[in-house]
Amino acid sequence: MKAEILTIGDELLRGEILDSNKSFLAARLCELGVEAYRQTSIRDDLGELVDAFRCAAARSDLILVSGGLGPTRDDRTTESIAKAFGRKLVLDTASLREIEQYFVRRGRTMAESNAKQAYFPEGSEVLRNPLGTAPGFALQESKSWFFCMPGIPAELVKMMNESVVPQIEKRSDLRKEVSSTILLRTFGIGESSLEEALKDCFHGSGVTLGFRIAFPDLFLRLTAKGNEPAKVQAHLAQAQAVLRERLGAVLYGEEQEDLEKIVVNLLRESHQTLAVAESCTGGWIAQRLTAVAGASEVFLGGVVAYSNELKAKLLGVDPALLATHGAVSEAVARAMAEGACTRLGAELSVATTGIAGPTGGSAEKPVGFAYVAIARRGEATQVRSFCAELERNRHRLLTTQIALDGLRRRMLGFDWNLNRAGGISQPVD
Amino acid sequence: MKAEILTIGDELLRGEILDSNKSFLAARLCELGVEAYRQTSIRDDLGELVDAFRCAAARSDLILVSGGLGPTRDDRTTESIAKAFGRKLVLDTASLREIEQYFVRRGRTMAESNAKQAYFPEGSEVLRNPLGTAPGFALQESKSWFFCMPGIPAELVKMMNESVVPQIEKRSDLRKEVSSTILLRTFGIGESSLEEALKDCFHGSGVTLGFRIAFPDLFLRLTAKGNEPAKVQAHLAQAQAVLRERLGAVLYGEEQEDLEKIVVNLLRESHQTLAVAESCTGGWIAQRLTAVAGASEVFLGGVVAYSNELKAKLLGVDPALLATHGAVSEAVARAMAEGACTRLGAELSVATTGIAGPTGGSAEKPVGFAYVAIARRGEATQVRSFCAELERNRHRLLTTQIALDGLRRRMLGFDWNLNRAGGISQPVD
Repeated sequence: MKAEILTIGDELLRGEILDSNKSFLAARLCELGVEAYRQTSIRDDLGELVDAFRCAAARSDLILVSGGLGPTRDDRTTESIAKAFGRKLVLDTASLREIEQYFVRRGRTMAESNAKQAYFPEGSEVLRNPLGTAPGFALQESKSWFFCMPGIPAELVKMMNESVVPQIEKRSDLRKEVSSTILLRTFGIGESSLEEALKDCFHGSGVTLGFRIAFPDLFLRLTAKGNEPAKVQAHLAQAQAVLRERLGAVLYGEEQEDLEKIVVNLLRESHQTLAVAESCTGGWIAQRLTAVAGASEVFLGGVVAYSNELKAKLLGVDPALLATHGAVSEAVARAMAEGACTRLGAELSVATTGIAGPTGGSAEKPVGFAYVAIARRGEATQVRSFCAELERNRHRLLTTQIALDGLRRRMLGFDWNLNRAGGISQPVD
Repeated sequence: MKAEILTIGDELLRGEILDSNKSFLAARLCELGVEAYRQTSIRDDLGELVDAFRCAAARSDLILVSGGLGPTRDDRTTESIAKAFGRKLVLDTASLREIEQYFVRRGRTMAESNAKQAYFPEGSEVLRNPLGTAPGFALQESKSWFFCMPGIPAELVKMMNESVVPQIEKRSDLRKEVSSTILLRTFGIGESSLEEALKDCFHGSGVTLGFRIAFPDLFLRLTAKGNEPAKVQAHLAQAQAVLRERLGAVLYGEEQEDLEKIVVNLLRESHQTLAVAESCTGGWIAQRLTAVAGASEVFLGGVVAYSNELKAKLLGVDPALLATHGAVSEAVARAMAEGACTRLGAELSVATTGIAGPTGGSAEKPVGFAYVAIARRGEATQVRSFCAELERNRHRLLTTQIALDGLRRRMLGFDWNLNRAGGISQPVD
């Protein structure tokens, strides 16, 4: 069973918008156990469209199409597919009535051009569009099924979920294999090291492993396929257990669980409050934590102490320390974190200070050098340093991630050592 | 002259990410006066890739390729293109040295798999990658030119701009028309109002105007085309002048000039220092300002006062105000901004307090309600309120943008009224 996706519209080929329909349709197919093996974007051009529909019919069993169903002369999907397969366009009176009513409900008169949207290639099944004027249609051409949907994302999503997915689910000839997949998130290990660590896994087990860099993280995707749902689930669970065992603390979450969600949940579960003291990250740690709904239960707030004066004034960092060691130093990172606990009244805190660049480095402390400190009342403060030669905002993002991951490791009792082999995840592609 | 785009990677066909490379490459081509007539995404599969490269060579003159240049066994672009056109893979020793040095600089050992990235199809020209380990390459196959670039967006953008665009510009056989384009950034006006305001512009002038929603902004792209470079430039300049005249203060910048850059520059030019006091935006204003290199000259820092205690303690907000009016109130917004000036020692400050949701609203102050205040020493503090029913993080982003835009308007002497017609830009699709 082969599936592909066609997205249609001049605006796509001019790069004016991100093609979110393409990724939505691909993701929905994946959830049904069908992986699209190809995706093509085509302009609103009759000749190019006819050619694309014929090629798709020759090579694929299931073709999802988005766009080109509107009322204007730019919209040529219906006309092209009819021409590609030698079919007449026939009026669907029920659709015409619905389109007329759509305008009546809005107190407007239907433009003549809208009538075009009630014509479909002979033999199509019309797919209702409760959100707009462009109905979709399904059409079988020899062994291939086409599902044509509107390009407006909200209309496409509704039609895909309510009309197309149920048809794909019903047609056993369109689905031969069951598949199940999970995304696993890691931080603190490079792509080559990760592949090295996992290279002998899953040979011949029906499970595949994919890597994706999502700086500064590295994501893994495990996919199991087969004919029996129970076996597929069991294979996936087994593979996941192997990965968790091998990766240990670098595997921090799955699917949508980002580090900020994990940190907020750990704080909530352990009834601790958190404050932050940020210099080089400039508010990014606080910004990410407060992106999590309900963060206010555990996150008290923080200080963005960009100037030395504010480090002293708001966090109580001793000006002598700043004078002796400089703002980017172990002593100041420690004092910032401890100051955040005492001054802001939190049990736990994290502080950052570093040289994000592009200027401000010295021989002793080059651009890219940074400290992250974690303090907890009544316990020893941990301070770690690292140096990463990265563009300013990638450096800030990496430092933010190290801070959040440090909080996670502290609360879970994992060791926290940035300098171990495979150290910090870097872009490698 | 026919151009097309190939983006490669299993993650694209599973819908795990939005294919931003595709739209970036398409937009850059458009700016060069070349419109891609087709875009295809292909999995990391040798057979499918070989087939795609051969088809592209048969039908197009210029083929831009992204992805599949990494060190892992998933990455098959180089191998496939060599196989498609019967070429050997040959080692480029200069690239190998660069990759080795990349790891040396980071104090790491190069994994064996990275050496793979220094092999290229015979006859290729290597394209340097200053940001990562994967060089790209250019290759001519009969009349077709292939440019293969890495899939990591930052690396792709740099290689396209610095290595590929100059080659396309040089080859007159690849370009027939001259075109010139500019992106203009607006905030505070909706798409329909904008379209209404500009509908009679540029008829028959050879200049086109495109809109793109980049929440919470709305971007305009002006493009002029023609055969004579001087005329094209003149048409573009004229059209830009018309737009600036009509749009006034809602047009805040062009191309890469985001609001944080503009605010930092205005502060620098007027020799003023800034501090922030953030509640609902949770550090986002500070995070954006500190993203600008050199922000430390004018940005002192800020307070993320998520709890009421910290609003009182760090900003000196009178606890009686908090008790009487609540944290989300005009009085507290004003006190936060004024406190940021006095406590943090800045000339100018901005404060935010609001209910980002999804919970925490009341009949009087529903979810989406927020205040933004701007204080300046010796002048009256301005406070504005608005209500926008948006998902939590879109609300926080809108509030951040209103705050930065408010600072810009204050420094430029523009009026600052969130409730005028066309008010806040909202998502409309």
